[in-house]
Amino acid sequence: MTDKINVGIVGATGYTALELIKLLLRHPNVQITRITSRDESHPHLSDVHTSLRDRLDLRFEHLEMDRFPEGVDCVFCCLPHAASAAVVGQLLDANLKVIDFSADYRLNDVASFETWYGVEHPDAARIGSVAYGIPELFREQIKTSKLVANPGCFPSSAILPLAPLFKNGLVQSSPLIVDSKTGVSGAGRKANLKFHFPECNESITAYGVGTHRHMPEIDQILNRFCGSETEAVFTPHLVPMDRGILSTIYLQRCDGIEEDQLMDCLNEYYRHEPFVRVTSQIPSTKDVSGTNFCDITVRSCRGTTIIVSALDNMIKGASGAAVQNFNVMHGFEETLGLL
Amino acid sequence: MTDKINVGIVGATGYTALELIKLLLRHPNVQITRITSRDESHPHLSDVHTSLRDRLDLRFEHLEMDRFPEGVDCVFCCLPHAASAAVVGQLLDANLKVIDFSADYRLNDVASFETWYGVEHPDAARIGSVAYGIPELFREQIKTSKLVANPGCFPSSAILPLAPLFKNGLVQSSPLIVDSKTGVSGAGRKANLKFHFPECNESITAYGVGTHRHMPEIDQILNRFCGSETEAVFTPHLVPMDRGILSTIYLQRCDGIEEDQLMDCLNEYYRHEPFVRVTSQIPSTKDVSGTNFCDITVRSCRGTTIIVSALDNMIKGASGAAVQNFNVMHGFEETLGLL
Amino acid sequence: MTDKINVGIVGATGYTALELIKLLLRHPNVQITRITSRDESHPHLSDVHTSLRDRLDLRFEHLEMDRFPEGVDCVFCCLPHAASAAVVGQLLDANLKVIDFSADYRLNDVASFETWYGVEHPDAARIGSVAYGIPELFREQIKTSKLVANPGCFPSSAILPLAPLFKNGLVQSSPLIVDSKTGVSGAGRKANLKFHFPECNESITAYGVGTHRHMPEIDQILNRFCGSETEAVFTPHLVPMDRGILSTIYLQRCDGIEEDQLMDCLNEYYRHEPFVRVTSQIPSTKDVSGTNFCDITVRSCRGTTIIVSALDNMIKGASGAAVQNFNVMHGFEETLGLL
Amino acid sequence: MTDKINVGIVGATGYTALELIKLLLRHPNVQITRITSRDESHPHLSDVHTSLRDRLDLRFEHLEMDRFPEGVDCVFCCLPHAASAAVVGQLLDANLKVIDFSADYRLNDVASFETWYGVEHPDAARIGSVAYGIPELFREQIKTSKLVANPGCFPSSAILPLAPLFKNGLVQSSPLIVDSKTGVSGAGRKANLKFHFPECNESITAYGVGTHRHMPEIDQILNRFCGSETEAVFTPHLVPMDRGILSTIYLQRCDGIEEDQLMDCLNEYYRHEPFVRVTSQIPSTKDVSGTNFCDITVRSCRGTTIIVSALDNMIKGASGAAVQNFNVMHGFEETLGLL
Repeated sequence: MTDKINVGIVGATGYTALELIKLLLRHPNVQITRITSRDESHPHLSDVHTSLRDRLDLRFEHLEMDRFPEGVDCVFCCLPHAASAAVVGQLLDANLKVIDFSADYRLNDVASFETWYGVEHPDAARIGSVAYGIPELFREQIKTSKLVANPGCFPSSAILPLAPLFKNGLVQSSPLIVDSKTGVSGAGRKANLKFHFPECNESITAYGVGTHRHMPEIDQILNRFCGSETEAVFTPHLVPMDRGILSTIYLQRCDGIEEDQLMDCLNEYYRHEPFVRVTSQIPSTKDVSGTNFCDITVRSCRGTTIIVSALDNMIKGASGAAVQNFNVMHGFEETLGLL
Repeated sequence: MTDKINVGIVGATGYTALELIKLLLRHPNVQITRITSRDESHPHLSDVHTSLRDRLDLRFEHLEMDRFPEGVDCVFCCLPHAASAAVVGQLLDANLKVIDFSADYRLNDVASFETWYGVEHPDAARIGSVAYGIPELFREQIKTSKLVANPGCFPSSAILPLAPLFKNGLVQSSPLIVDSKTGVSGAGRKANLKFHFPECNESITAYGVGTHRHMPEIDQILNRFCGSETEAVFTPHLVPMDRGILSTIYLQRCDGIEEDQLMDCLNEYYRHEPFVRVTSQIPSTKDVSGTNFCDITVRSCRGTTIIVSALDNMIKGASGAAVQNFNVMHGFEETLGLL
Repeated sequence: MTDKINVGIVGATGYTALELIKLLLRHPNVQITRITSRDESHPHLSDVHTSLRDRLDLRFEHLEMDRFPEGVDCVFCCLPHAASAAVVGQLLDANLKVIDFSADYRLNDVASFETWYGVEHPDAARIGSVAYGIPELFREQIKTSKLVANPGCFPSSAILPLAPLFKNGLVQSSPLIVDSKTGVSGAGRKANLKFHFPECNESITAYGVGTHRHMPEIDQILNRFCGSETEAVFTPHLVPMDRGILSTIYLQRCDGIEEDQLMDCLNEYYRHEPFVRVTSQIPSTKDVSGTNFCDITVRSCRGTTIIVSALDNMIKGASGAAVQNFNVMHGFEETLGLL
Repeated sequence: MTDKINVGIVGATGYTALELIKLLLRHPNVQITRITSRDESHPHLSDVHTSLRDRLDLRFEHLEMDRFPEGVDCVFCCLPHAASAAVVGQLLDANLKVIDFSADYRLNDVASFETWYGVEHPDAARIGSVAYGIPELFREQIKTSKLVANPGCFPSSAILPLAPLFKNGLVQSSPLIVDSKTGVSGAGRKANLKFHFPECNESITAYGVGTHRHMPEIDQILNRFCGSETEAVFTPHLVPMDRGILSTIYLQRCDGIEEDQLMDCLNEYYRHEPFVRVTSQIPSTKDVSGTNFCDITVRSCRGTTIIVSALDNMIKGASGAAVQNFNVMHGFEETLGLL
């Protein structure tokens, strides 16, 4: 029998932490030993996440570096950007493995980070060398990493279908339009008039047009797969549903490339991947809801290639990807806790 | 041509004010002249209520008693309880008519108010003599009133079907169970984790069980129609939809009363009322959504009488009732602005 | 006092007819006199549309050409494509005015119609000369028309923002991507597993990718405003909400055109239009829900122009536009029944 | 290592079968070997349930009794009432264990069945001796059963909280009001105008008032626990959400019983049960969504006891209960596949 990995979750009051805990409770090789929050009152886990009533008997503690590493082998860090990088270094120094949900280690360079996030990076030295946590694309690097940058939800939905096509020179890097639609859980678990039920129910709107921070992340990762620079025009939309991202991507095939070659390429690339399903049907977010799957199809309209991808922003777009990275980092079967 | 009534709205940033403005913009005899809010920045109406873009060119002002009455004939007061009664007296003194949306003047006695609302009443002298704004039941008093207490949304859904049955001695006053289901707009326009989209979407729950402040209001108004004291057991539930209240009411017929007599009584009572529809079908909130109607039916199960009523909590449960009261107070046709 | 126009509605069991009736009941110059359906049982209007309970005392009748025109001045024809053109000619011959909701008279030529709709056109002679019912663009022709082709919901959301920009030579006709998101009422009032609540709730998906019939309609109308041929790449998506269309449109400015010129152009073009609101905020479908407004904004991202438009598919995208056309055809104030 | 149980699913095109398959795919001791449907075209599982894409490579076959039992040890029968009992006998004769989702074996007597379901019972001899599949109440009988009647979703939500209270003589059997609210998946996977998205979205209504077939089921099971006959007044409501049942139950304590005794009794009764959570908070359906939990609390209002219970109609109300029964019948740990 495998010894269990002791897992700590830093910043465990949000939705991604909730989903993470649900997945880890099903994982045969995991024991959750510590959860943290800045809440002074040290509530019980189930006081905050009522759906976890009677599932896990833990109280929130403050993150205190001299005590936290005790009884912890691996940390899922769910803090906001900048707050995360302020502690990740210490966690690594304490010889813990870390999967970081924030954007702090996703970008290639400090300048980009500071431009887009508007704060100084607290751990600039590590930037650029951290594995980007899409195992389907960066598995070998993740395997040997102590720190993995868990990818953004929107970028995952764009990068998974596009990377193989760029890598194989089938599509042009520009123009590239990514029109994404997300459920409201993506906004996090914090009261805000924008996400007040009567404000966003029965409504769809665009937001962050031209300014969303996932834009440089999409660019930088895709640029590793295409010869030239991509500049994705990315527009997210808020959809009245709990979870799910559907991305509709518009781009052009390279000269001489036939329509069928795109699906063939994706089918071939993801043939042995357990969590990417290339399908001839148009995906819906319901098909992937509550799962770690990303469903992808390719269509054509008047010469333009249209790719539709669907994933659950909370699972393949966040906590499921994190568990998948955890499995890769620990040499476990990649699907543990995820099917 | 009728001169228009100049209307001021005090506390106009909430959902009831938004609905009220939409109704009043359709009212041929109304001109909205002033809107107030405590917001220091005096935003334009359409900055707060974006759906009113280009509809009404007004800015929010602070309520200042020396200036506000100028250019105002009638006030819709949408302040919270206690805050409302703190200004209503001054508005009346300035010779304005007032329709008050708060609970401040709905109850019969100061003691009840202070018990249930936990604050001292700022205008205790008026309590007990103010018209309760259900025109179908109290039209004569409303006609001659300078101040009308606009009724609570849940009480309206219970009182409209029950009052005629009690008045005619057809049903017993106890036991009386009112199981109500409401859309989330009833919670108001204020960010709160409970009403954060991902918290209440795809979920139904009960709240305020045994403690909701609409309970004494239901009792006191119903008691005017039945010989004995009612003590409604009232349980509200939060439903993932914007608007609408469905109340399912369980009670017993009086001895010797046949099932058909209840529908006959309601049909007769509401025969000439434009906004109460007694129907043999089971009502749904969708049937009344966006309207000032209250739909009612009566069924029987194993000897127990089951009444189902539906209304739009924002219209017949709030702003529509207010406009109806406004029409009655000014001698206008009662349906103006409401059909 | 104006004599009322007697209105008949052909094919009145669907959602567009329901919305139409609600609007017409508020119209001071309209009396609805006849409604038709193929239902053999001649149900009462309120048996089919329960929300219209007690609003209008009419029964459905079969459309019989020898009797129908009696007591009717103007017809709103809500039949499916091809079925509509099979009767419109006779209605015109009987000297009635007709506003046709189907696609039968929207396209310029019979060949297009027969290619995209897959049926022979029953009234081919009229094709190409019928007014397209967007008054903001074709008011003069509508004024003198006996027959108006009410526009498609998606085309309206694309054409309203684009026509002035094309007309003024500010944007390039290609590439043109229209990514639209619609509520489920657009699918009509007919049970279908695709629109079964548990299938489409909490899900978003694309459909009709590359094959939707609104694509040639968008092209043909836009082509009247731009020098060259447009070929819109149009992708509709199904959103879990009742109503509303949000279109996100991606295109390129012409050389030398500054970003601000686009908003300036739209502001100028629609300055005096009561139902188009050009706004600096990003529109949401909730802002226009239940109204005849179309809200439009323009943004820019990395050189690409992004236009976001929002309208209510049932109102400005169908029945509201129809009433607006009705008003123009009869010389009434254009906002009657619509504010 | 345990040999896997070969499982067949009869009538596998519906939502309960879909949920069942999802649960069984996680069950370590189960292999799904056969699925049936009346569809002549023998589609692949994933053609019908697109969310199961790449999960299980099976095609639907017709149920043919001479071939079906081959390679099957245990059957989950998801046929409609009467259709189920027409085949269950043959499945048992072929030495298969059966968990039946229909109502065919839930009631005590043939007369009740035929009265409420309006058809002759095809297997009347077995009625009255079949284990009712709530393991928390009837575990010992289920353990030794070859056939288990999987309980109704509404009855489960009422019986779980009430049985211990009745058994311990704490509450009166009459009056008993069960006001239940359910998501739309309870209506099954069949297009029907009532459950068309735009009909039931943004609406709540009651249905089957006084006539729902779960009423005798609630009565008969509860009568085993209370001395006298119960006659539950049961009213279901349709809520615009996918899944979940919340039941609000109104009844009276027996003389001399204190409020606290009810929670104490439930806490004690369910102390060691993995799937019933007695809680001081008011449950919501979201807390149990996607799980096999039933959450229960007890409150009091003006002397009336109010019980609120929540479960997922698809899991604890159907497929989760079935897997739990399966585990009990096979001597497996009861939580396998369910946590």
